[in-house]
Amino acid sequence: MSTSPRLAALIDALRCMPGIGRKSAQRIAYHLLQRDRDGARKMADALVEAMEHIGHCRRCRNFSETPLCDFCSSERRDKSLLCVVESPADVHAVEEAGYKGVYFVLMGHLSPLDGIGPDDLELDKLAALLDEGEVQEVILATNSTVEGEATAHFISEMVRNRKRRVTRIAHGVPMGGELEYVDSGTLSEAFAGRREVL
Amino acid sequence: MSTSPRLAALIDALRCMPGIGRKSAQRIAYHLLQRDRDGARKMADALVEAMEHIGHCRRCRNFSETPLCDFCSSERRDKSLLCVVESPADVHAVEEAGYKGVYFVLMGHLSPLDGIGPDDLELDKLAALLDEGEVQEVILATNSTVEGEATAHFISEMVRNRKRRVTRIAHGVPMGGELEYVDSGTLSEAFAGRREVL
Repeated sequence: MSTSPRLAALIDALRCMPGIGRKSAQRIAYHLLQRDRDGARKMADALVEAMEHIGHCRRCRNFSETPLCDFCSSERRDKSLLCVVESPADVHAVEEAGYKGVYFVLMGHLSPLDGIGPDDLELDKLAALLDEGEVQEVILATNSTVEGEATAHFISEMVRNRKRRVTRIAHGVPMGGELEYVDSGTLSEAFAGRREVL
Repeated sequence: MSTSPRLAALIDALRCMPGIGRKSAQRIAYHLLQRDRDGARKMADALVEAMEHIGHCRRCRNFSETPLCDFCSSERRDKSLLCVVESPADVHAVEEAGYKGVYFVLMGHLSPLDGIGPDDLELDKLAALLDEGEVQEVILATNSTVEGEATAHFISEMVRNRKRRVTRIAHGVPMGGELEYVDSGTLSEAFAGRREVL
């Protein structure tokens, strides 16, 4: 016996969010109904607005409300530097680090086991972007996972064929990190990537 | 520099859910935009529908789409048994245990420090329900926390004043639980509540 089909429908619908199971969905539904109906209505509006108006930039594939995103259309970004990242969240992280070039957002990574190939990442768009001629250096900032490394390797071949400079962001000890707690792979990369002290 | 004000608004709006911080909200927004726009639209609909149509049962305070909830209006529930719980989630748990009476849902617990008194739990409605005369026994199934126990104690006084039977659900070793891992408070309650083996 249920008290409300609409409540059941809400709990079910909330489960489309990643990381939200039945228990969390229930807790969220009760919370919104009991304490934040205004917040729930605003959330519904924001969802509809976002799904309706947010698409992808036709140049860099990042989320954008306009055909060309703010990065690609800005006069103040260095168009000779192109940073390749896996997701819009990574763009956010790279921005925080003070990067001033432009991006190409893969919206994923190569993963043959999941059936994700070069076409799914629309690497033809990346090729087209390189062929425009403005880009001088491609910085590969995919994740340091097996898939991220494989994706970086694949793209580096693409870029090299087009005779552009291609770099990979450095591995090493995180700022504030203690050697004792850094894994050996990272530490060995940190040694290999050591630099002259000036 | 942001790529989309509507994306920022969505991330912000998602944070009205309990347990969802900035990072989770971002992850949810990206996921919905990238992989489940349909799910997001359904979620928006479900939210609007639920907020619009779900109110409280005027008798037991549980969430309901009708003035009287399914439990209170059912002919098949035992109206002489009234189970007092803190939340609709508890109703769900008690139902699973096979309870066949009716409920009173407090939608919280007494908590003087948070300024939650008897009025906030609408205990006058509980009093009115008792005065209807149908209820013979009140089963206190509030949580076994300090606030839950205090609330149970307060309500037990109310019920006793009205000369009805009032009981509290038992403490003890959970089914399948091992004595070694049960806390001493629970174990002492389990000893005090021991029953004759028939």
